[in-house]
Amino acid sequence: MAAEFMRVSPQEIEAESFRIISEKLDEMGIVLPEKEAPIIKRVIHTTADFSFAETLTISDGAIDTMRNLIENAATIVTDTNMTLAGINKKRLEQYGVRIKCFMSDEDVAREAKERNVTRASVSVERASLISGPVIYSVGNAPTALIELDELIKKRQMNPAFIIGVPVGFVNVEYSKELFRNSKIPHIINWGNKGGSNVAAAIINAIVYGM
Amino acid sequence: MAAEFMRVSPQEIEAESFRIISEKLDEMGIVLPEKEAPIIKRVIHTTADFSFAETLTISDGAIDTMRNLIENAATIVTDTNMTLAGINKKRLEQYGVRIKCFMSDEDVAREAKERNVTRASVSVERASLISGPVIYSVGNAPTALIELDELIKKRQMNPAFIIGVPVGFVNVEYSKELFRNSKIPHIINWGNKGGSNVAAAIINAIVYGM
Repeated sequence: MAAEFMRVSPQEIEAESFRIISEKLDEMGIVLPEKEAPIIKRVIHTTADFSFAETLTISDGAIDTMRNLIENAATIVTDTNMTLAGINKKRLEQYGVRIKCFMSDEDVAREAKERNVTRASVSVERASLISGPVIYSVGNAPTALIELDELIKKRQMNPAFIIGVPVGFVNVEYSKELFRNSKIPHIINWGNKGGSNVAAAIINAIVYGM
Repeated sequence: MAAEFMRVSPQEIEAESFRIISEKLDEMGIVLPEKEAPIIKRVIHTTADFSFAETLTISDGAIDTMRNLIENAATIVTDTNMTLAGINKKRLEQYGVRIKCFMSDEDVAREAKERNVTRASVSVERASLISGPVIYSVGNAPTALIELDELIKKRQMNPAFIIGVPVGFVNVEYSKELFRNSKIPHIINWGNKGGSNVAAAIINAIVYGM
């Protein structure tokens, strides 16, 4: 029975959760590629939503690329303060990774209003000025992915990695499709689902595997 | 086609999202109680997961109670920094609401380790010392709900409101069932699902409706 109390020590809760997730995936007949499994399972751990096992896509070699980027102190830019709050900053800072979110900068809000664009897309422009490789994480705003695509096409930006997991109903699927055949290493969740918590889970899963 | 671009101005994206959510709920034959609809729709907006329409439960009069608590400058305690990051602090601070999260306090971590309990349950004990009414928001840790239940039974705590939306697989459903017949005003999502983002969406939906 799901509602019975399981006696599990604090240190064991996460391992037990992952065991239950693995068991359920087995029951569902879903076999995850070994290297991708920890990432997809952590997203399920964060959402209790097994549909991510069918929609979360990791481009070839992307996990190694992201590990390399972290080891080489890349900058992570997040589109929300929630992702920023959710990622394991201690672990990332050990590698010298800087983590930025421009979303609540007052000048970003002002500029967005003046130009009638979203704060998310102004934030992408701010990120294009960062020197060194950038991992761009989009957990909320499809307009960020759309702006990324435009700046990449105009050669004004060249992100080293894209996490594309915005959530919602207006241009969310459209924004992800822009990266369907992208050569930029990426992790994308096809469809409507995603979220700031999903973006954080993906980043954490990669760091915990290092 | 879902992947076609919709031209929607930044100010209209949210309204358009809610229109799409309402349309889909209609198609699904789901009729939400008028007062509860903005909260449930905002949770769907945050997750793109319509299952919340069937599992999110708001106890009788709970919305008015929470509005009252906010108007009277209650304290909101969250179990994660992600919820803290996701709630509209500006709006809440206008009412004099204080928002606290004990999760990353170093002494909480130390005490949890020493006593072999979770940081979430030590955080609940910290919150029991707050004077004045407390809205306790649990978006992640079922152990926080379990500790809340224990302190309430021991009359060591009397939260004015409980948001119970932990997510996961170990004691998540059990922890929610403890509050099935609770007289404390509550918003609970039955089942495995929930999340820090869901907790933030619930709080924001109530504030935006004030």
